[in-house]
Amino acid sequence: MNVTIAGRTRHYRTVTFDPERNAVMLIEQRLLPHEFRIVATRDFPETARAIKAMVVRGAGAIGATAAYGLAQGARAFRGKGMAKFAQHVEKVYQALKAARPTAVDPVNAMNQVRAAMRSGETVVEQQALALAAAEEFAHEDARHCEEIGRHGAKLIRNGMNVLTHCNAGWLAFVDIGSATAPMYAAQAQRKKFHVFCDETRPRSQGATLTAWELAQQGISHQIIADNTAGHLMQRGKVDLVIVGSDRTLGRTGEVANKIGTYTKAVLAHRHGIPFYVAIPLSTIDWNLKRGFDIPIEERDESEVLGAWGVSQPPKSKTQLSKARTYVRVANPTSGALNYGFDVTPAELITGIITPAGVFKPRELWSRRKELGG
Amino acid sequence: MNVTIAGRTRHYRTVTFDPERNAVMLIEQRLLPHEFRIVATRDFPETARAIKAMVVRGAGAIGATAAYGLAQGARAFRGKGMAKFAQHVEKVYQALKAARPTAVDPVNAMNQVRAAMRSGETVVEQQALALAAAEEFAHEDARHCEEIGRHGAKLIRNGMNVLTHCNAGWLAFVDIGSATAPMYAAQAQRKKFHVFCDETRPRSQGATLTAWELAQQGISHQIIADNTAGHLMQRGKVDLVIVGSDRTLGRTGEVANKIGTYTKAVLAHRHGIPFYVAIPLSTIDWNLKRGFDIPIEERDESEVLGAWGVSQPPKSKTQLSKARTYVRVANPTSGALNYGFDVTPAELITGIITPAGVFKPRELWSRRKELGG
Repeated sequence: MNVTIAGRTRHYRTVTFDPERNAVMLIEQRLLPHEFRIVATRDFPETARAIKAMVVRGAGAIGATAAYGLAQGARAFRGKGMAKFAQHVEKVYQALKAARPTAVDPVNAMNQVRAAMRSGETVVEQQALALAAAEEFAHEDARHCEEIGRHGAKLIRNGMNVLTHCNAGWLAFVDIGSATAPMYAAQAQRKKFHVFCDETRPRSQGATLTAWELAQQGISHQIIADNTAGHLMQRGKVDLVIVGSDRTLGRTGEVANKIGTYTKAVLAHRHGIPFYVAIPLSTIDWNLKRGFDIPIEERDESEVLGAWGVSQPPKSKTQLSKARTYVRVANPTSGALNYGFDVTPAELITGIITPAGVFKPRELWSRRKELGG
Repeated sequence: MNVTIAGRTRHYRTVTFDPERNAVMLIEQRLLPHEFRIVATRDFPETARAIKAMVVRGAGAIGATAAYGLAQGARAFRGKGMAKFAQHVEKVYQALKAARPTAVDPVNAMNQVRAAMRSGETVVEQQALALAAAEEFAHEDARHCEEIGRHGAKLIRNGMNVLTHCNAGWLAFVDIGSATAPMYAAQAQRKKFHVFCDETRPRSQGATLTAWELAQQGISHQIIADNTAGHLMQRGKVDLVIVGSDRTLGRTGEVANKIGTYTKAVLAHRHGIPFYVAIPLSTIDWNLKRGFDIPIEERDESEVLGAWGVSQPPKSKTQLSKARTYVRVANPTSGALNYGFDVTPAELITGIITPAGVFKPRELWSRRKELGG
């Protein structure tokens, strides 16, 4: 999407590839929203480290990064022996896979690249095919998000207030995003609407990433504390909720997403407000039989006990501040319990917005053939 | 309640009076939880400033501070002329009232002190009566909280997980607190239970004040992000919710409390978890006809856009850190919407714990005579 730096607007993707330097180019997401910088990883171990260190995060974005990283590693091979080349590619694959062992996206993405490589008969041919497949993966990711936007934009009407939670924006994909895609598409259709961004404690991705995205795109928005949505709904100030998902169960329609999503779904249900989940098809889990079995990551308590921010706010809106510091907010002798995700049951979900259309959560299973299940 | 500093445990009240120095002694709540310090205000303008600057906060605590402040001002009068004395007392009253113009507690407390003074016939007599009445007000406040604890402790059984929101603890009263009173009473009865403290963004009173209180009292507890309670309830990990209230409508049983309270009530209701509100009788509003008309304060957006904490965490659990700093967390070009309170309807409230017993919210009106309405 567009980013404006010092008055100059340019289109960026979260992940691209520079064939001349054989480098993966990444938006350094750990500096956002206080600084926008593109970093280059010059070899596959550096790309793996960038995934591990969360320079890049989000399902589609790490998938594309791994795909590019595999091509990068393959292209760095010098020699003509196919057996040695295959060994080398396997080493690259394992290194990138190990960078985020619980994620399924890098593995799926790299499998696509490897499958494409097989039709090449020489090292050089396979190297070229690897890059082409990685590029194709990245384009596909953006195209799927565009389709989500096309279907989801119909839900946004003029004058609406839309609530979103966490960041399922373009920063989590190659471009456009999932939960944000309908907003960007509705904006392109010149619809006027307002977005409430849940702060999304403890990591504040709503206040940092989603708010930054919407500000860059010029979409009217306000950040709210996670405590506030209930009150706004009670007063009739929320018309639509759109969130993303880390894993959606194809068999039950249950949705695992950032902690607090379930709470928003319960509130929306009480107030009769439509609650939609926007997802690329790759996040559908066709195997798991019940949401209760989705492992819920327990994260370090320091996230809940404090906050990351800048202590010297920039003096103007274009100046960027560099030093993010951690402050301990909580009582120093207390601990915290920090779950990263929760599970929302199908009965609370109005619809699932996919690149293939909008479905009732319990429709997914019967349509599994067209949805790639 | 008890506070342990450097291994030494002592009982403190949030507000006391030192007759020899004619000083109001206050716990400097703006330094908590990172530093515990008692400050003395040496004249009534300083007491008014302490209320205004939130050195002391919470209904009962500011009521007692105003009562002591009025006695302090009255006692500073030099002379025997009753007319001049009355003028002086009126000036003190107005100064303390103006320190927190929307609060009803300081006014009610000072009216009690003034009523008591009337039976004195000389300046010296009235000065003595003022102090006695202020002391009586403070003792009453603590006694009422003790009664809340006595009634509420019956709700806490061994092995329970109790959720609370914000701080309705002893720091908000003279002692013991409202929502915390049942916990302290249950602890005294040697019941074992665990408390989840909602962080309570944006001002984080749960993570700072409630967690500090519970840690000082040695009650098992963990801080959770405001997003987490729904997940815990879904997994059967919350057995009871107890919160406080800023204003409870006697006619309808609706409860205004810190933003996010309504959300917790909706979640508890969905999961069949008892949801109780603990209040002193002074917070019941017998006039207002519907909760929708309770004015909801809109506070400065900076609270949502950042956080206050210490950047140099103490090196040990007994060492205290002094420098609280503000960090900007959110995207620098985004704004926030910051409501301070919300309203929970009677249908979501299992019971109201008062010093006079536990009542259904809609019972308050029929029992208004015994509840002082």
